[in-house]
Amino acid sequence: MSTATATPPTFEARLRVRYAETDQMGVVYYGNYFTWFEVGRVEFLRQAGFTYKEIEQQDGCLLAVVDARCRYKAPARYDDEIVVLTQLKHVRGPLIHFTYEIKRAADGQLLAEGETTHIIVDSTMRPRALPEKYAKAFKEFVATPGE
Amino acid sequence: MSTATATPPTFEARLRVRYAETDQMGVVYYGNYFTWFEVGRVEFLRQAGFTYKEIEQQDGCLLAVVDARCRYKAPARYDDEIVVLTQLKHVRGPLIHFTYEIKRAADGQLLAEGETTHIIVDSTMRPRALPEKYAKAFKEFVATPGE
Amino acid sequence: MSTATATPPTFEARLRVRYAETDQMGVVYYGNYFTWFEVGRVEFLRQAGFTYKEIEQQDGCLLAVVDARCRYKAPARYDDEIVVLTQLKHVRGPLIHFTYEIKRAADGQLLAEGETTHIIVDSTMRPRALPEKYAKAFKEFVATPGE
Amino acid sequence: MSTATATPPTFEARLRVRYAETDQMGVVYYGNYFTWFEVGRVEFLRQAGFTYKEIEQQDGCLLAVVDARCRYKAPARYDDEIVVLTQLKHVRGPLIHFTYEIKRAADGQLLAEGETTHIIVDSTMRPRALPEKYAKAFKEFVATPGE
Repeated sequence: MSTATATPPTFEARLRVRYAETDQMGVVYYGNYFTWFEVGRVEFLRQAGFTYKEIEQQDGCLLAVVDARCRYKAPARYDDEIVVLTQLKHVRGPLIHFTYEIKRAADGQLLAEGETTHIIVDSTMRPRALPEKYAKAFKEFVATPGE
Repeated sequence: MSTATATPPTFEARLRVRYAETDQMGVVYYGNYFTWFEVGRVEFLRQAGFTYKEIEQQDGCLLAVVDARCRYKAPARYDDEIVVLTQLKHVRGPLIHFTYEIKRAADGQLLAEGETTHIIVDSTMRPRALPEKYAKAFKEFVATPGE
Repeated sequence: MSTATATPPTFEARLRVRYAETDQMGVVYYGNYFTWFEVGRVEFLRQAGFTYKEIEQQDGCLLAVVDARCRYKAPARYDDEIVVLTQLKHVRGPLIHFTYEIKRAADGQLLAEGETTHIIVDSTMRPRALPEKYAKAFKEFVATPGE
Repeated sequence: MSTATATPPTFEARLRVRYAETDQMGVVYYGNYFTWFEVGRVEFLRQAGFTYKEIEQQDGCLLAVVDARCRYKAPARYDDEIVVLTQLKHVRGPLIHFTYEIKRAADGQLLAEGETTHIIVDSTMRPRALPEKYAKAFKEFVATPGE
């Protein structure tokens, strides 16, 4: 019933399409959007007050991807400025779910949307709970807390 | 009612995990599985008697990806020999749907499974029908013709 | 004896190391520095008043790489902010020579230095002269005009 | 004066150009040749009776790149079958030097040649000597033992 639920926070990262990211079709290779999702995710964490580097090094938590999906709407092209919008959909036990929108900065055109689900694991790849300090902080940013 | 439906053809490609494909988690970066799906797809076409290069150059058809998904079951690691199993699920108008299984060659362990949907476009990115010669050939390889 | 020669213009681009760019050694994969050189080169052109996109599309010029080298001094790590410093060393006929320094933003530590030589070609990969408007503009930015 | 010097052993690896490796110029992106050098190097080690995986895991040795260079002669294109020829030039203290030739399998055309120099380090990135078993084995394969 909180107004926070009504307007789930969205985090924004920006990047410019690299030549290396294009393919001979003249557009960005489809696999590279998943790298952009990573850029969005990392920026989300940074804006939430953490860095993924710390989560790995200080807390020994890795976010292993269990599911990733992208739906492509319009091609991204070389030198386009790209906006990556990231939302934390939910945190449930060891699972974290993010959603993404990829837009062209020039005109706001939606280029792709996607989602990734991660499981928190330790350095031996065993599932573990998210440390309390992250769990608490993440709750503030969850888009759909009532789910 | 054909027996072909009962045993949909599966095509196999093999590759070895490159150091470049790993990340600091010590496993293959999640976005790289989509490159492996591409390797499987191309090998499917080659074994079906075509090369994607010809489809692009001779027929001016591009297979633009509209949807891609991967579910990760177990990590692929550096130097693993990988088997990519590809099936053509269906061809419907300008849409082509492939599914993939990524296995570790050493023990057959399933590492990931995924799917991609493609739309056939011309060089200006407009949808177009698949040329008859491909449509006819592909029909033989469709896993679920009755769908 | 001109002061221009004494202080050759250096252009700066910034980027943050992506998880996708690391490998299982826990540092950035050596081949990815060449992508960063590209980021520096493109930013050089943009700051010089051009975009590589225009050079390709409007003038039909491609900058094909003929030689690339990188010397690695210290490892770049995940999430490091990176500064790419680019200089145009010289333009001679169809050949363009750039040099690069890769530094860690946090402490200015030199991580790598490199160079690339490019030949200007048309869309059929035949060498051609650099269009006058670029040649003229580039001359202002050449680090070693007397060479 | 040994006959070994006259015919330095060359190791061969084969790969097929992936769509992901091309860029919008319609040829392989220049940075990707360094990944192919890695494929050649790893295959060299395997054919010499070792795997790089073992060297890392069992002996705690990493081969950190200190210098890498590539000279591009003709473009590699999508779906080309590529031959990577690798030679071990010399081993000197903690430094190992490899050279490479990249050829198109169809006609033997030389596409690129390059070299990489590596320093043997432990997991904390400190230089260390190559373990004796490798040093001994490598000596047999050195192209220029008299250098």
